Amino acid sequence: MNAENTPLRLKQLGIDTYKEAVIFMRKDCHVCRSEGFEVHARVRVTLGEKSIFATLNTIDNGLLKHGEVSLSKYAWQLLDAKIDDVVKLSHPHSLQSLSFVRSKLYGNSLKSFEIKHIIDDIAKGYYSDINIATFLSACAGGRLNNVEIIELTRAMVDAGEKLSWTNNVIVDKHCVGGLPGNRTTLIVLPIVAAFGLIMPKTSSRAITSPSGTADTMETLAPVDLNVNAMRKVVEQEGGCIVWGGAVSLSPADDILIRVERAMDVDSEGQLIASLISKKIAAGATHIVIDIPVGSTVKVRSLNTAQNLAALFKTVTNEFNIHSEIIITDGSQPVGRGIGPALEAKDVLAVLQNQSDAPNDLKERSLLIAAKIIEFSPTVKMGEGKKIASEILSSGKAWKKFQSICDAQGGLREPPTASFTHEITAKHKGRVSHIDNRQLSRLAKLAGAPHDPAAGVKLYAPLEKLVDKDEPLFSIHAESKGELQYAISLLSEVDDIVQVEALE
Amino acid sequence: MNAENTPLRLKQLGIDTYKEAVIFMRKDCHVCRSEGFEVHARVRVTLGEKSIFATLNTIDNGLLKHGEVSLSKYAWQLLDAKIDDVVKLSHPHSLQSLSFVRSKLYGNSLKSFEIKHIIDDIAKGYYSDINIATFLSACAGGRLNNVEIIELTRAMVDAGEKLSWTNNVIVDKHCVGGLPGNRTTLIVLPIVAAFGLIMPKTSSRAITSPSGTADTMETLAPVDLNVNAMRKVVEQEGGCIVWGGAVSLSPADDILIRVERAMDVDSEGQLIASLISKKIAAGATHIVIDIPVGSTVKVRSLNTAQNLAALFKTVTNEFNIHSEIIITDGSQPVGRGIGPALEAKDVLAVLQNQSDAPNDLKERSLLIAAKIIEFSPTVKMGEGKKIASEILSSGKAWKKFQSICDAQGGLREPPTASFTHEITAKHKGRVSHIDNRQLSRLAKLAGAPHDPAAGVKLYAPLEKLVDKDEPLFSIHAESKGELQYAISLLSEVDDIVQVEALE
Repeated sequence: MNAENTPLRLKQLGIDTYKEAVIFMRKDCHVCRSEGFEVHARVRVTLGEKSIFATLNTIDNGLLKHGEVSLSKYAWQLLDAKIDDVVKLSHPHSLQSLSFVRSKLYGNSLKSFEIKHIIDDIAKGYYSDINIATFLSACAGGRLNNVEIIELTRAMVDAGEKLSWTNNVIVDKHCVGGLPGNRTTLIVLPIVAAFGLIMPKTSSRAITSPSGTADTMETLAPVDLNVNAMRKVVEQEGGCIVWGGAVSLSPADDILIRVERAMDVDSEGQLIASLISKKIAAGATHIVIDIPVGSTVKVRSLNTAQNLAALFKTVTNEFNIHSEIIITDGSQPVGRGIGPALEAKDVLAVLQNQSDAPNDLKERSLLIAAKIIEFSPTVKMGEGKKIASEILSSGKAWKKFQSICDAQGGLREPPTASFTHEITAKHKGRVSHIDNRQLSRLAKLAGAPHDPAAGVKLYAPLEKLVDKDEPLFSIHAESKGELQYAISLLSEVDDIVQVEALE
Repeated sequence: MNAENTPLRLKQLGIDTYKEAVIFMRKDCHVCRSEGFEVHARVRVTLGEKSIFATLNTIDNGLLKHGEVSLSKYAWQLLDAKIDDVVKLSHPHSLQSLSFVRSKLYGNSLKSFEIKHIIDDIAKGYYSDINIATFLSACAGGRLNNVEIIELTRAMVDAGEKLSWTNNVIVDKHCVGGLPGNRTTLIVLPIVAAFGLIMPKTSSRAITSPSGTADTMETLAPVDLNVNAMRKVVEQEGGCIVWGGAVSLSPADDILIRVERAMDVDSEGQLIASLISKKIAAGATHIVIDIPVGSTVKVRSLNTAQNLAALFKTVTNEFNIHSEIIITDGSQPVGRGIGPALEAKDVLAVLQNQSDAPNDLKERSLLIAAKIIEFSPTVKMGEGKKIASEILSSGKAWKKFQSICDAQGGLREPPTASFTHEITAKHKGRVSHIDNRQLSRLAKLAGAPHDPAAGVKLYAPLEKLVDKDEPLFSIHAESKGELQYAISLLSEVDDIVQVEALE
């Protein structure tokens, strides 16, 4: 295999292709010729002990000299490479696990070792985006059975790191996404930690929504802590709210999510495996799962929610995790803000017991905190709510939140947007319907989550009586262009907040 | 939408990403900022009247100045762009057809207008590789019903150009791939054209095989003719053998095939739609479809072949195409050569009536030519074989082939490889099994089809009695490195040509 011995020197071109590893080579590179590498081929790139698979792009205008190659940003990271490092290229061995993906696509069930093999190869970065999209498609539409979901969960846990703690009870929570503004974690966590339970919380950034819990938390404190830094915060404060991507407890899942976002498809089975595997990796023993139901959120019917709940129970039981599943109302956003900073301001209002704090966010948070507190062997069922309320109203939760933020790198003020635009009621009436999806879309067009101050602020919840010209919601943006984008959506869609005239 | 009005000038970076359109922008480009474009986002790029969707890659090391952007080679082509042209960027409108893809993935049938919408968007280049992989996955594993296959065929025809001819009978042939060396087209076509029928043949290059018909033909004459040049050849000679990709009769299919290759998955329904749509686009009224069956080719059982044949009948009937479907033996390669030039040499031997011409290739070609000739209203059933044989043996077919090659740009000599390696029998015996897949893999490792002289030459067909040390097959390569690759495969796999010792 002569080309394996041909040295190629790395040059920096500064190209970022997101999380697909790409290698850039001269079109007339002698290694391409002798190895028969063609553009779009998958190539194995080896640097010292590390090896990755990368997709080949060719360059023909002299950016690279003979003997030079370049990598995409992600490939530099994966290989831990430096400029002028020498890499070797070879043909990737054919991936046996792709035949398991094909088999699944053709309708067969996957065996445990097949799933393990697929997830291991994904975690190692061996799959191209096209391979990953094929795997996710093969699993979507309810095509994973319970055994497959359990084995997928196990494979995802095994492919990453697993935290262990000395305490017997490690709690966690998760909300099955889709409900804008539902930032209960930032309130539940300090309550629970102040009570004395251990909650090492890793959260995600937005995938298709205007903000993920990690995005909202980031407007208040740093979230990109590594595992060691996270452990220190938890040991000191009993809890943390950090970005899961930095902790990287589930490397396979981080890769799947990226392609899932581009596909805009999720597979129920993969969602459960993804979620539970992260909880197991974080060391959780007891979890509360919140499933909001509503016509414009992810889970649209009680029936679907109940099936999902049963599936969660099956999987958590398999891994000896105590789970409490609550099905909640998802008919309208929680709190007032949608977008990182606007949601953070709602959270602060609740934690600081401000008189105008959004009550729905507070009540949801207390409900979840209560369930978690009741996991504690010293607390009787039904007593959780009282304990949680006392911790919040006394200011202990706010104090704990500040300590956690300090431990994560320092509490900061969420930013405020430079441009806003208010949408008002066309006539007097009662708010009869709110389209969560379109509100989220507005917030994203306005710049959320990449502009943390951008988003939507809702003034008129369901059933509110409003006068003509009374503000229904406002759009917040960091640039005039983005504000205009969001405003232009308003002309395309029907009333996002509907006001029914009263007789 | 302010960014639409911000001019950005095109700079050439010479980057080839194969057929995914990519736009390269500075990471700190003000348009990225104001529009909220993030790396990996899909962006609409407009130049004059043309618009494409491209995936955003960012560059942060000064290759681009402020106000400059670059495109991948494919995007330059799609936009017909020149250096210093000014493009405008905007957010792509969300693709409604992606919701139809999701619906299919979740198990619903696609309606006619939904399929049309999907294929139109694909043909326009609006789908990313991930979107296309999701669509193909949703259709794989027998998930398209007959109506969907028919509508997919129709949509693919409608998305491209359609040739029309003055003759009432326009013939064509197709072999459902996977049988190495099966280059009957290059023999059938001159026979049929010499007889007087019209056969405007577009062929494909190799997708996953060591050679496609277009690759083999290219070693004998140019094949990248556009529609007008192709029409001239057909009008003059009655037939042509050109590369379908240059003619671009089915732009949607060209895009699907690229992703299919990377997935290494094919969907039966999509295969049929792809194939029939190209025949309809070429103006065919009568076609012969050859389905080889064998344990190491694409169709492995007679039952599968019969189901496929029935499906072909259903679809061709729907479009008023007369089809003759033949199921043939696919247990071993056809002829001796596997790889573009080696196959071309087999073809020449048959056309020139050389005494050592491979008889299997000749007989298969005559069978198909006979069926096609019997499409002619002047020929009785059963007379085709005699007519075809006479045209071949008299040298008329060879003369016609030379004229066609001349019309396509000139007949040329297929190249011969610089390096060869012979594999011989370990003991005396009878050839009992040939692994077509591994022979193809060998030919590809040796450099086929990108090195046209590379490939495998088989000396020992099934049932042949061989002595110890008699050559079974040889590997041909253009470089020592590639020859070594191919040879190294031999140690990994069991006997590719098995010789059974005789008692």
